[in-house]
Amino acid sequence: MDVIVQKYGGSSLADPAKVKLVARRIARTQERGVGVVAVCSAMGDTTDDLLLLAHQITSRPDTRELDVLLSTGEMISCSLVAMALEAEGCRAVSLTGLQAGIQTESSFGRARIAAVEPTRILEELNKGKVVVVAGFQGVTDGRDITTLGRGGSDTSAVALAAALSALRCEIYTDVGGIYTADPRIVPTARKIDEIDYQEMLELASMGAKMQPRSIELGALYEVPIEVSSTFTEVQGTLIHGGGSMEVRNRVRGIAYDLNVAKITVRRVPDQPGIAASYFEALASKGISVDTIVQNTSKEGLTDLSFTVARTDLPLALEQVVAESGNSGGEEVIHDASLGKVSIVGTGMRNAPGFASRMFRSLADSEINIDMITTSEIRITCIINESLIPKAVQVLHDAFVLDNEEGEI
Amino acid sequence: MDVIVQKYGGSSLADPAKVKLVARRIARTQERGVGVVAVCSAMGDTTDDLLLLAHQITSRPDTRELDVLLSTGEMISCSLVAMALEAEGCRAVSLTGLQAGIQTESSFGRARIAAVEPTRILEELNKGKVVVVAGFQGVTDGRDITTLGRGGSDTSAVALAAALSALRCEIYTDVGGIYTADPRIVPTARKIDEIDYQEMLELASMGAKMQPRSIELGALYEVPIEVSSTFTEVQGTLIHGGGSMEVRNRVRGIAYDLNVAKITVRRVPDQPGIAASYFEALASKGISVDTIVQNTSKEGLTDLSFTVARTDLPLALEQVVAESGNSGGEEVIHDASLGKVSIVGTGMRNAPGFASRMFRSLADSEINIDMITTSEIRITCIINESLIPKAVQVLHDAFVLDNEEGEI
Repeated sequence: MDVIVQKYGGSSLADPAKVKLVARRIARTQERGVGVVAVCSAMGDTTDDLLLLAHQITSRPDTRELDVLLSTGEMISCSLVAMALEAEGCRAVSLTGLQAGIQTESSFGRARIAAVEPTRILEELNKGKVVVVAGFQGVTDGRDITTLGRGGSDTSAVALAAALSALRCEIYTDVGGIYTADPRIVPTARKIDEIDYQEMLELASMGAKMQPRSIELGALYEVPIEVSSTFTEVQGTLIHGGGSMEVRNRVRGIAYDLNVAKITVRRVPDQPGIAASYFEALASKGISVDTIVQNTSKEGLTDLSFTVARTDLPLALEQVVAESGNSGGEEVIHDASLGKVSIVGTGMRNAPGFASRMFRSLADSEINIDMITTSEIRITCIINESLIPKAVQVLHDAFVLDNEEGEI
Repeated sequence: MDVIVQKYGGSSLADPAKVKLVARRIARTQERGVGVVAVCSAMGDTTDDLLLLAHQITSRPDTRELDVLLSTGEMISCSLVAMALEAEGCRAVSLTGLQAGIQTESSFGRARIAAVEPTRILEELNKGKVVVVAGFQGVTDGRDITTLGRGGSDTSAVALAAALSALRCEIYTDVGGIYTADPRIVPTARKIDEIDYQEMLELASMGAKMQPRSIELGALYEVPIEVSSTFTEVQGTLIHGGGSMEVRNRVRGIAYDLNVAKITVRRVPDQPGIAASYFEALASKGISVDTIVQNTSKEGLTDLSFTVARTDLPLALEQVVAESGNSGGEEVIHDASLGKVSIVGTGMRNAPGFASRMFRSLADSEINIDMITTSEIRITCIINESLIPKAVQVLHDAFVLDNEEGEI
């Protein structure tokens, strides 16, 4: 049976009326003769409401219990979507992460999918049912409930599409596609028709609204991902591996991320293994470190700076302060008012001049750059978060992204 | 290890502040050196709110999906209680019905517990943790989520107490015990210090606020059940098997139930097997039939009346109308405005005069009796629901229940 995986985000399921509209779209897809697996996020602000509830109990909720709590949001939306489908005469069954066979590692709140065992899903598809799967959640070997982190439903959907060898994974959102920049900041931002996995991965990693792991998985298993609008039939964006017709020697999009904090350890002994011991301490808590800068050594001491997600800052500071006791380091300071702005495009790989144009444009607008990090197809500047909207607009203009022909 | 099972109802967990108070009570119990398993209901009106949500999707929600939806209420309260315990420094873990090993039959919405496999619970108790178990829910052989019906958390708690050979099962409520009648109707109702399983079973079956199956299980496995107040230290009611010191030749309590509907099938062929086929059709849908009355036959035809829970009326009518097509029966009529009032007491077993005093008291107050049903230790009258409060008060007075010496 040909299978299509569809993923519906929280804003597409914000109230009972929208749940019914989503059910109708799912039913229409099934009527075309394909098996449908629908992955749902929690309705509207449910996840934030549950987080608030947890914080009314304690300022530092136990991470295992927080995952039990948050996982209920997707169970609610999935059961309602399945009810709406049944009420329409379309046979359906909702499955939790456990029932759907989504097995994860045990790092609560940010678990990675270890394997998908879709036995139950296939059974239900073979009975002719639509299978509605709770996104964002999985289960450890010990059957503890885990969640996959913000945007985790995207990853659930792509992982299921891979495990089921689905024709494609359709991601439905209220935005309806991938844009050259956030349209709320840049009104002239243009929807991108197609983009390859690598470019999308860089955009997503730098703040575009998809979980980067979902794109990694899509690339690894060659799952075509289509990002579309839930409630219109307007064409969205296709993320795929084949060289895009649209790719030319240019920047594809501007991404930004406000979830950035910088930690600096002053006067660390400049010895082999010291930086490693700091980053090992952070990794042991599942904290990803992004940009790292180490200054030239003076008198055998150096300053070590790096960025982490702002949401990880309290836990990261705890680790770093403890490690400075072990490894040396005179003072730990931090700055939680930073943001990242990035230009992304495979066209940058072999062409010079992109970095200088980026830095010059920001300088002309009096935007000071705090740190810089690059990949083959991306340049990222870390700046004050209050300047992010201005920087995004300036760079969108500098690389002429509102024009389909771009800057060349 | 000595284990105590505690059950906390929804009104005891209505908001974060109450959740923290419940956690403190649990922690205090554990400090006395016993293992604690805390079974929690959904917070406050959560279950009703979820039902409302389902009914905004469809007037007849799929029962499997409804159970997935409703089961989230207990997951939320349990994770919050576990967080509150951890925040107090008391190690805790919340378990869903599946994780707690509560296996049920597959009749969604009213599943009976088939077995409890408390492996995980014992593991966690042995680690020194408080185990917080989601009440009201279980899982089928096929790992589908089920719920146990209204009051099901009582049954979860007693079943766990039985499986763990617990010292006792403590049921915490805002009422704080079992009364001779509902104190909201009869202000002079008296709290009962102890009562035996059989009497409590009759009271619960007739509307006292505990699930009758929990009492059956308690009797079967000889689990002492203590019903107490969550937020005070006032003595509650002990439900146990040993002959109660307090039992004398008297009525122990007045129960009532507003969840009653009557169905009458007019002019049914008076042949062997006809009544059976009606009740088999109802049983196949898991609908319990209560009082049954069959009138004397005229011309080979008879009227068959019986009561069902009012919440079962729509489904029951469907079955009965369909069956009247097969088995004969001219007309199906129903009345959803009925209630039950009962007097209960083991003292009634060998003493005459209770029935006549009951009927006389009701008649003196101009309360008309629609149907009558009795057990060895109970007499129940079905009357118009609007007359229930008056009837409860009249019978409480007639049997002098506000006086500890009672009516003898």
